[in-house]
Amino acid sequence: MATTTGTATVTVSLFLSILILSFSPSSPLLIEPKAPELRSSRATSRFLGKFAELNKSKALPKSYQYETRYFTQRLDHFGFSNLPTFQQRYLINTDHWLGAERMGPIFLYCGNEGDIEWFAANTGFVWEIAPSFGAMVIFPEHRYYGESMPYGSRDLAYKNADSLAHLTAGQALADFAVLITDLKRNLSAEACPVVLFGGSYGGMLAAWMRLKYPHIAIGALSASAPILQFEDIVPPETFYDIVSNDFKRESMSCFNTIKESWDAIEATGKTAEGLLQLTHTFRICGNLSSSQDLSDWLDSAYSYLAMVDYPYPSDFLMPLPGNPIKEVCRKIDSFPDGTSVLERIFAGVSIYYNYTGAAVDCFDLTDDPHGMSGWDWQACTEMVMPTSSSKSKSMFPASDFDYSSYQEGCSKDFGVNPRPRWITTEFGGHDLRTVLKAFGSNIIFSNGLLDPWSGGGVLQNVSESIVALVTNEGGHHLDLRSSTTEDPDWLVEQRESEIQLIAGWIKSYNEEKMRLSSM
Amino acid sequence: MATTTGTATVTVSLFLSILILSFSPSSPLLIEPKAPELRSSRATSRFLGKFAELNKSKALPKSYQYETRYFTQRLDHFGFSNLPTFQQRYLINTDHWLGAERMGPIFLYCGNEGDIEWFAANTGFVWEIAPSFGAMVIFPEHRYYGESMPYGSRDLAYKNADSLAHLTAGQALADFAVLITDLKRNLSAEACPVVLFGGSYGGMLAAWMRLKYPHIAIGALSASAPILQFEDIVPPETFYDIVSNDFKRESMSCFNTIKESWDAIEATGKTAEGLLQLTHTFRICGNLSSSQDLSDWLDSAYSYLAMVDYPYPSDFLMPLPGNPIKEVCRKIDSFPDGTSVLERIFAGVSIYYNYTGAAVDCFDLTDDPHGMSGWDWQACTEMVMPTSSSKSKSMFPASDFDYSSYQEGCSKDFGVNPRPRWITTEFGGHDLRTVLKAFGSNIIFSNGLLDPWSGGGVLQNVSESIVALVTNEGGHHLDLRSSTTEDPDWLVEQRESEIQLIAGWIKSYNEEKMRLSSM
Repeated sequence: MATTTGTATVTVSLFLSILILSFSPSSPLLIEPKAPELRSSRATSRFLGKFAELNKSKALPKSYQYETRYFTQRLDHFGFSNLPTFQQRYLINTDHWLGAERMGPIFLYCGNEGDIEWFAANTGFVWEIAPSFGAMVIFPEHRYYGESMPYGSRDLAYKNADSLAHLTAGQALADFAVLITDLKRNLSAEACPVVLFGGSYGGMLAAWMRLKYPHIAIGALSASAPILQFEDIVPPETFYDIVSNDFKRESMSCFNTIKESWDAIEATGKTAEGLLQLTHTFRICGNLSSSQDLSDWLDSAYSYLAMVDYPYPSDFLMPLPGNPIKEVCRKIDSFPDGTSVLERIFAGVSIYYNYTGAAVDCFDLTDDPHGMSGWDWQACTEMVMPTSSSKSKSMFPASDFDYSSYQEGCSKDFGVNPRPRWITTEFGGHDLRTVLKAFGSNIIFSNGLLDPWSGGGVLQNVSESIVALVTNEGGHHLDLRSSTTEDPDWLVEQRESEIQLIAGWIKSYNEEKMRLSSM
Repeated sequence: MATTTGTATVTVSLFLSILILSFSPSSPLLIEPKAPELRSSRATSRFLGKFAELNKSKALPKSYQYETRYFTQRLDHFGFSNLPTFQQRYLINTDHWLGAERMGPIFLYCGNEGDIEWFAANTGFVWEIAPSFGAMVIFPEHRYYGESMPYGSRDLAYKNADSLAHLTAGQALADFAVLITDLKRNLSAEACPVVLFGGSYGGMLAAWMRLKYPHIAIGALSASAPILQFEDIVPPETFYDIVSNDFKRESMSCFNTIKESWDAIEATGKTAEGLLQLTHTFRICGNLSSSQDLSDWLDSAYSYLAMVDYPYPSDFLMPLPGNPIKEVCRKIDSFPDGTSVLERIFAGVSIYYNYTGAAVDCFDLTDDPHGMSGWDWQACTEMVMPTSSSKSKSMFPASDFDYSSYQEGCSKDFGVNPRPRWITTEFGGHDLRTVLKAFGSNIIFSNGLLDPWSGGGVLQNVSESIVALVTNEGGHHLDLRSSTTEDPDWLVEQRESEIQLIAGWIKSYNEEKMRLSSM
């Protein structure tokens, strides 16, 4: 589904399947208000689900070596119904492990919403630091993603609400807990300290796992984890406000051009002729049936650009230049006065959708053929992350989070009713600092302020050992990526801080173990 | 099922349903080894289940006033299967509550395996201290007990393994979490601190809830909670060793008489004539079909006597004198030389089974007509607490915990396979001090060393705020009972310590809230 270069069509359906934004009927910008749609409210939640459908055929770096194994898991850890078990895939490397007797640490990445090999390939930090720690590395896959399918196949696992019922964060954490406990027992490595890693939803899992299973892991590096993006803990506008700021800081005129473009697109798309013009200007394959589809496509591009606004060229979601937003804005701003907004916008997003400049006849906005993804289900059950777009600060069309339409859409799509308050009941979130100041330890919350998800992250130290590492120039869990020769100093320093903190956890743990065993 | 006085028959079936002990075939004391039975291995787990079947008709003290309410709960908090909801009963008193604005605390007792009214009646400590704290008091009932039956009735809830599938500790904790969160929201009391209380299994729930839901409760008084009685964390002999020590400390000859009695009973019961003699000597209703039934009945008496070996007369499980073991032993030792072991034993246990001295024709050993209790299910799924009886230290017949027969029995009785390692995976237990020294806060583990469950309790301070209050002369969660004029000083002091610690938690919480809100 990801970009395939050198052919006539760039398939961007992945992104469409993730973000198809429309607006609430109350929006004053809408000339012809549409009926509330599921998509509008679930949109931002879906950004976290970006990994779910990534095509495995996308080449993976071969630099990280691991063995692939499978572990039999219960479908329901919290009950005793007679349900079938399933095979959870996990990747493991013990090459550098100090072994059980020398208390070799175990680094466990909490697999998130996608193929675990893809996360392994994009989490170079863990692979790079493991040898110096003498650590084993494990990447367990999240249930219902990749190859870890209950009921034997993706089709059967995703059949209906009943088959999807056990796709929850709590069950996934229990999978990790059971797996690592069994693995340690088999290796007589019960005493070896486990350190958790995770980015994005995986970072949420890492933090929650440290809180829920302190007896299983001694600490967690939770990167770009929006654990506060629930209910009313943070304002619902943070996501789009941050995306907008990322553009504004590069260029006010770029920000303004984008802000103006929605009306222009909307107005142009009101006639058949106008739609044809949009189709032509944006080189969309087939004919646009609604200007909204185009707006969604653009919204998606801007949002992902903000997430991966890395300081050097990368190929995380798409091949992109370093500081891609700067490039996009440079392009948008580069035209002589009088150039239409639409032309500018097209030139800008081409940086995102076709940076390699391959010969592209048209962009395909066709939706993902696989239909609903696992993250759609998670967003419709537990991961209800309210998102609005403010009229004043955002460059996006104003919209208010509308829970009723959200709920309605979930009911229609999955026959399920979301439980928007369950995550904070299960894991907390409200009043986090008071709670965790007097409870818990050894969590690093790392966030880059360019990342729109940082708005839902923990940005202040909670206690001596629950710390926030915030970087002004960081994107979405950049710290977890492999080091490059182009890493700016602040990134090198951030990773060094993380290494020092993790080393400190392990040292304290070992000292305490030694102290108690000598008593 | 509990003692009914003044009639011709004392029904003791409750205790039989709880403890029906036989021995593993490897036991050297057995002349005719029996095939391994379920009962043998599940026996001690069942002691914790003593509350399950207590007859509601037993008069409850009327001193505590509360309103009875019901709350709609999901059957499965950790999944989205389309299951029916159920009504959870809870008792609530807000008479002394300071209210939301004044941050009035909320005292929540974690209901355990029985009718919640019975726990409310036997947890005077909470009722007595609530007014001075300005605290609201809530006693939510544990699912599948009392009136809190899924599927609409006890019969339907207890129909089979599938209907019982969601009777787990994790689900019960989630019930408490959801209930209190909803209740606080409705009262705009989100900021009010919740303090947890619990005794026995309820104490385990209180400690686990503090660990799993630190955002919901600021601390827990976990009384007589054997959270370490799993797997190999403590030796499986602790329970019977402690019961035995309780008798030994009163009288060595009493201990020896009991230790000798098992062989005498076994030997006598080998013939039909001998069984008749046992039936007669122990005034058993009907005819004993096996001496084992008698041994089980005696084992049960000694074990409960150890649990409720309180320093003053009580009526917790049975009406008993103060220091009942002293009384039992005095009786056993009181006979002239030459009196048979069997006569001595009968006289001794009569203190337990018929202290009131009502005119009793015979004791009824018939099993509980209700069949399996909820605790039986819990013991067959999560609450696998290995129990052995050591040949050297115990006054009971030697026996080794035999997991295979345990498992076999559970399969036969419920069609379920126990998961003996799940509790420690979910809640921890191994290496508790290392884990909790660096994680968690505000838990009091109180234990009385006369209580056989103290062997599985936390008996050492873990950190400054995770403390162990251990009393040499205390029984099973005596501290949670209402104060009496006969309370010894150490008990008064213990309760005072608990009050001070709880007051400290609330004070720190309020100060931190104030500090953060002024920032």
